[in-house]
Amino acid sequence: MGGDHAPQSVLAGANMARQRYPELHFHIFGDEAVLKPRVDRLRGLAQVTTLHHTDEVVAADAKPSQVVRSKAKTSMRQAIDLVKAGEAAGVVSAGNTGALMGLAMFMLGTMKGVDRPAIASYFPTVKGETVLLDLGANVTCDARNLFQFAVMGEMFARTVLGVQEPTIGLLNIGSEAVKGHETLKDAAALLRETTLPLHFHGFVEGDDIPAGTVDVVVTDGFTGNVAVKIAEGTASLVTGFIRGAFQSSLSAMIGYVFAKRALQKIRVRTDPRRYNGAVLAGLNGIVVKSHGGADALGFATAVGVSYDLVRYGFMDKIAAELAELTQQAAAAEADRAAAAS
Amino acid sequence: MGGDHAPQSVLAGANMARQRYPELHFHIFGDEAVLKPRVDRLRGLAQVTTLHHTDEVVAADAKPSQVVRSKAKTSMRQAIDLVKAGEAAGVVSAGNTGALMGLAMFMLGTMKGVDRPAIASYFPTVKGETVLLDLGANVTCDARNLFQFAVMGEMFARTVLGVQEPTIGLLNIGSEAVKGHETLKDAAALLRETTLPLHFHGFVEGDDIPAGTVDVVVTDGFTGNVAVKIAEGTASLVTGFIRGAFQSSLSAMIGYVFAKRALQKIRVRTDPRRYNGAVLAGLNGIVVKSHGGADALGFATAVGVSYDLVRYGFMDKIAAELAELTQQAAAAEADRAAAAS
Repeated sequence: MGGDHAPQSVLAGANMARQRYPELHFHIFGDEAVLKPRVDRLRGLAQVTTLHHTDEVVAADAKPSQVVRSKAKTSMRQAIDLVKAGEAAGVVSAGNTGALMGLAMFMLGTMKGVDRPAIASYFPTVKGETVLLDLGANVTCDARNLFQFAVMGEMFARTVLGVQEPTIGLLNIGSEAVKGHETLKDAAALLRETTLPLHFHGFVEGDDIPAGTVDVVVTDGFTGNVAVKIAEGTASLVTGFIRGAFQSSLSAMIGYVFAKRALQKIRVRTDPRRYNGAVLAGLNGIVVKSHGGADALGFATAVGVSYDLVRYGFMDKIAAELAELTQQAAAAEADRAAAAS
Repeated sequence: MGGDHAPQSVLAGANMARQRYPELHFHIFGDEAVLKPRVDRLRGLAQVTTLHHTDEVVAADAKPSQVVRSKAKTSMRQAIDLVKAGEAAGVVSAGNTGALMGLAMFMLGTMKGVDRPAIASYFPTVKGETVLLDLGANVTCDARNLFQFAVMGEMFARTVLGVQEPTIGLLNIGSEAVKGHETLKDAAALLRETTLPLHFHGFVEGDDIPAGTVDVVVTDGFTGNVAVKIAEGTASLVTGFIRGAFQSSLSAMIGYVFAKRALQKIRVRTDPRRYNGAVLAGLNGIVVKSHGGADALGFATAVGVSYDLVRYGFMDKIAAELAELTQQAAAAEADRAAAAS
């Protein structure tokens, strides 16, 4: 029931995902009176879907803290519950991001070895695609948080983008800074010294994200959120200027006719619907957030992201890496204790 | 002597600025053997220029802290010294940003009522131009810093962009945040409650910068620096895609021929050389940083920014506003003391 065009774009998106991945089964939560006739109309979808009626939904403008405290059996809460019960492999929602994060954290809990979950997604670059996290779950982060984000972002690049040995960059600013940023230096040290097979590139700057300098860019949720919104805003500023230019003279309009097909290819390449689906990483369950404004194609992409995370073992692999670190730390501690006795 | 194309672009830029503003007089610092023949060749420039020979320059990669500690009579130091002595109204440099900030802070000192200087500049938006600060002088900021940045950014919009009643936004993130950001809430309260005639719009998000929602966007130096670099990087990503599209087929190339003139108008509108010149605001003197890669036109723009700041009374007006605040605080304190006695 979540998102600007619900339930239609969610249902049509699920149907599109079904065609791509016929092995999927959907559990769809919401007002059955609204959903059933629509699902029935999408015949193939009905056959692979279990409908779950809920009387309540999470409002788009509901306060996350109130949603978490409330006992209301909303569609969002019940969908997450199915993941918790192990009956669904993951949940995808186009609804209220804060509420989804809050509910998922509360109900599923944070993965062992993860101090704070992070929101991760991926974006087009000069070279291909780059994963960016955190996109807004944590306003401030310490070095350990950033290190764990790197582990999760690297695994996102492996499982969703299929990058074999993803490189990791830590977002920082150039030499203009009169003062340094201790947290970033500490996080860089953790990444440089880890025994995990991570490829830490070092610090990167803002322009390295669109340049695709590394596969994964790690930052705090405040900077990450600002970064994504500025990138989207700037892209539409520039495309708006270009659209205006093509309409500014007869000659330019004729030019557009000739160039149209080539320009449309860019539109496909930078289509935000192809980059839809942010994972709430670090929880005991796969939770993917679709953009609230996503249409069917966008929602289908988000379903694809959640499926990739499930089938390529995103959670298990992160858990294994973090367990290794915990074990190493325990062994080092035992060595110290033995040496001291 | 600073910048990638020094001294040629600096001298040619000064000459271009001289044609625009014949009332200006230049003091140019550096190696006289290199500078004199070049200045002499730009005849009009020689007549309005005093050359000051220096044996030393600040290297592009010099560490700011070392530059500040060093006693070397570099061209940068001597240029700032002339402002300090009151013999120059402002200084423009295309050199090492950190060194310029460090030296200027050390030599000129911070303006009364300003806790920390900030780097401010302006950028093209859907609606026109928006001032953004801090661009990297302060990695972390408290609420008072941000409030003072707002006062300085607002005055930059008045004096350089000629905006009559600039609106101010405080950069924040949307409802995704599970945790709030106390500093921003406190800064918003200061801006909302101030008796200064500031037009505080409230919080804005990353995409509000390219959208031109407000005339001035205030943020800390870390976020501001990342923001600018992502915006620049994204703009070149998109224009790169478009350039590629025009070269991808014969039809597209023909289209480009027809649309070329219209597209060049955008290039003029978004030309970074038209947005060159960042002020190191809050110092006891006008200090403007030109982009290191600026050509003559870019450097001339930076000279224009410094001249606007001088002739429209940037410093005096900020000082007056901050003095008013100090006076009010003192009066309130006196009232409290009187009431208590």
